[in-house]
Amino acid sequence: MRLSEYFLPILKESPAEADTVSHRLMLRGGFIRQAAAGIYSWLPLGLRVLKKIEAILRDEQEKAGAIEMLMPTLQPAELWKRSGRYDGYGEEMLRIADRQNRELLYGPTNEEMATEIAASALRSYRDAGKILFHIQWKFRDEIRPRFGVMRGREFLMQDGYSFDADEAAAKRSYEKMFVCYLRSFARMGLKPIPIAAETGPIGGDLSHEFVILAKSGESEIFCDRRILSLKASAVGGYKSDLSEEVSRWTSFYAAESARHDPKRFDDEVAQENRLAARGVEIGHIFFFGDKYAKALRASFTDRDGKERFFQSGSYGIGVSRLPGAIIEASHDEHGIVWPKPVAPFAVGLLNLNAQDKKCAALCDQLYAEMREKDVDVLYDDSDERAGAKFSTMDLIGTPTQLIVGPRDAKDSRAEIKDRATGERRVLSAEDALRALCEADRARP
Amino acid sequence: MRLSEYFLPILKESPAEADTVSHRLMLRGGFIRQAAAGIYSWLPLGLRVLKKIEAILRDEQEKAGAIEMLMPTLQPAELWKRSGRYDGYGEEMLRIADRQNRELLYGPTNEEMATEIAASALRSYRDAGKILFHIQWKFRDEIRPRFGVMRGREFLMQDGYSFDADEAAAKRSYEKMFVCYLRSFARMGLKPIPIAAETGPIGGDLSHEFVILAKSGESEIFCDRRILSLKASAVGGYKSDLSEEVSRWTSFYAAESARHDPKRFDDEVAQENRLAARGVEIGHIFFFGDKYAKALRASFTDRDGKERFFQSGSYGIGVSRLPGAIIEASHDEHGIVWPKPVAPFAVGLLNLNAQDKKCAALCDQLYAEMREKDVDVLYDDSDERAGAKFSTMDLIGTPTQLIVGPRDAKDSRAEIKDRATGERRVLSAEDALRALCEADRARP
Repeated sequence: MRLSEYFLPILKESPAEADTVSHRLMLRGGFIRQAAAGIYSWLPLGLRVLKKIEAILRDEQEKAGAIEMLMPTLQPAELWKRSGRYDGYGEEMLRIADRQNRELLYGPTNEEMATEIAASALRSYRDAGKILFHIQWKFRDEIRPRFGVMRGREFLMQDGYSFDADEAAAKRSYEKMFVCYLRSFARMGLKPIPIAAETGPIGGDLSHEFVILAKSGESEIFCDRRILSLKASAVGGYKSDLSEEVSRWTSFYAAESARHDPKRFDDEVAQENRLAARGVEIGHIFFFGDKYAKALRASFTDRDGKERFFQSGSYGIGVSRLPGAIIEASHDEHGIVWPKPVAPFAVGLLNLNAQDKKCAALCDQLYAEMREKDVDVLYDDSDERAGAKFSTMDLIGTPTQLIVGPRDAKDSRAEIKDRATGERRVLSAEDALRALCEADRARP
Repeated sequence: MRLSEYFLPILKESPAEADTVSHRLMLRGGFIRQAAAGIYSWLPLGLRVLKKIEAILRDEQEKAGAIEMLMPTLQPAELWKRSGRYDGYGEEMLRIADRQNRELLYGPTNEEMATEIAASALRSYRDAGKILFHIQWKFRDEIRPRFGVMRGREFLMQDGYSFDADEAAAKRSYEKMFVCYLRSFARMGLKPIPIAAETGPIGGDLSHEFVILAKSGESEIFCDRRILSLKASAVGGYKSDLSEEVSRWTSFYAAESARHDPKRFDDEVAQENRLAARGVEIGHIFFFGDKYAKALRASFTDRDGKERFFQSGSYGIGVSRLPGAIIEASHDEHGIVWPKPVAPFAVGLLNLNAQDKKCAALCDQLYAEMREKDVDVLYDDSDERAGAKFSTMDLIGTPTQLIVGPRDAKDSRAEIKDRATGERRVLSAEDALRALCEADRARP
């Protein structure tokens, strides 16, 4: 993409409303724009990040055997009255009356609707064992929306719902999603910490939330720091026994302040491994048995001919929250340092002097060759001065920069800069291109 | 995808609420499920169609130079008060009060918000000439939602907004989207008819809607039937003069009943070319000059240093309406006949006897090879009887069927059936596979 043909409104000043570093960088870098309190437009650059995150989640969900559908944003209140959650959900639920005064609501989550859909289609024990998911906008009317997309009101969620014939199978689905979420976060360059959690308004008796450490985090986390060096894997694939993998992750001490036990922490964790830090929640999974199935009459005919209720869980990731969380975990004083798999562009090509004919010709040629090779590149072909171009590219955080100034252009050379390490090297244009294409192919 | 691992709730009976053939087939075939009046869940099969349509629209938008972003579903009422449309829009607008009693609305369209975003970023005549689009859910509170997804209340729209420095450039953007829409529809197997139209609540003085002919259409269309044999093209690409291409399409008589002129129709169209039929609107484009730019103060500094307002148009396609419209135009007494580019799966593989070992082994092998070759295949590996499998595959309308019964399996043969023509031929399994892969590659 040529910057001159793109839509990238960089702000020169730090916006006053930004209350955390990710929010400031997303506004300054032209990733988002506020439409109302806690409601954002995703500008082209931000949408690219959101779509890359979505694609990773979708791919990992499908690898785990989950099936994608798409439920609407608005739901009939009647459905929530049947589950008993309508009155109890509180003011975070956006309640709406249509022109005929029928009660609707903007879905904050979809347990009821997913259960109703499953009930209509899954009739026998042979149909059980399904995980359905969707990626759809939700609304929670936070009293004090803040931290930009990290605690917005309208937000994009990937939420899944499992329907199994018995508790053992349901626990396996829970473990699948546990591992699937670990793998998804790892692909985005995040280090997730699973923490046993309260089930809150969803209900049930088993729940984990996934947090990452970040200074702006809303909760206080106490954990064994060795958990940060674990790597997510599903060695035998999703058909194997996953309980061992889940145990490996949950064997280390990890708690939020509300459930923190200082004595256990001291007893179980060697002093050098004790970590107290702030965390951001990026995912939450629940097992709640037949809670919604019973309320919504989602039953199936079991092997013995008896009608039984499905055993279920639900699994959610705040998709639109993730760009903020990733930036919190990965930035420096110059701007964002995107992990490659979620970067809006993999490469930034900088023409340091658009007036210099040799320089422009070499950049145009490099751009054409990268496009030909499907390298995901943003080409700053604008008339800005070199300093502004460096600042912009550092701010928006493309992992690799390819820099061409008049002097290098004369000798057909270009400089490659690694955004994360700051490492620079000057190569012949040909070698630089080859190095970039190799780096692009090596992306996880 | 193996049917045994999929979520495809086929209804045996025709649903009572279905008021048109596409609605009936989408419900019966497990494409959608009603959540509330005019609000639908897209089940996995339906979502696949929706995503293929989305991908075509996105690709054609980008080819025309439009840039994707994503605005939220909810908008502040204040924005619509500034444009003067808030009070006038009527009951179709879903008005919402949040917990702090701030006025919001579920966006029925996005002229105001897109203009506000453009105003914040485009400051100079050098920034002009941008088309921004998004694909997002909208809500219009129809008094009588009907025809399933064809006239739903919550619906997915692809809407674009252009910002140009003068009227001539704005007209060029209008022509680009005119041609872009023709190309998009053609890729979905549709024959669009552009018709000069009223501008309604959007405003402006130039507008075309795109309709396709369908028995269930809401409007009556009078046109020169030769328009149906035109092919959309942008021979010179979007940088060339497109006015000739637009003229070619608008030179034929075409009118909706409200603007129909029987005398002109008789004078201009030879009797054998006069066509009166019902039509469904699938897209609508508008040029409205500085209407919104003026109201929302979207100005830029022109070459002469003067502040001027952008000249704009807006361009909309009802994405979630298209699967219905395509089915209206392409079905038979057995079910849907999807054009290949928007079919939920390109190929249906039918194992006529899952108990027969040879049959199952050959099907498994064919399935594995198709997956290996990235053929988009749905494999009916279920225990159903052969007749039910034929009916299901005809109903959901995969363009090609690969049928394996015990007798053919014994000789390593398979039957290929073309859903549209009903043509069948028995080939060796190897040749059948080769033919399928070639057909898949040849898809437009």
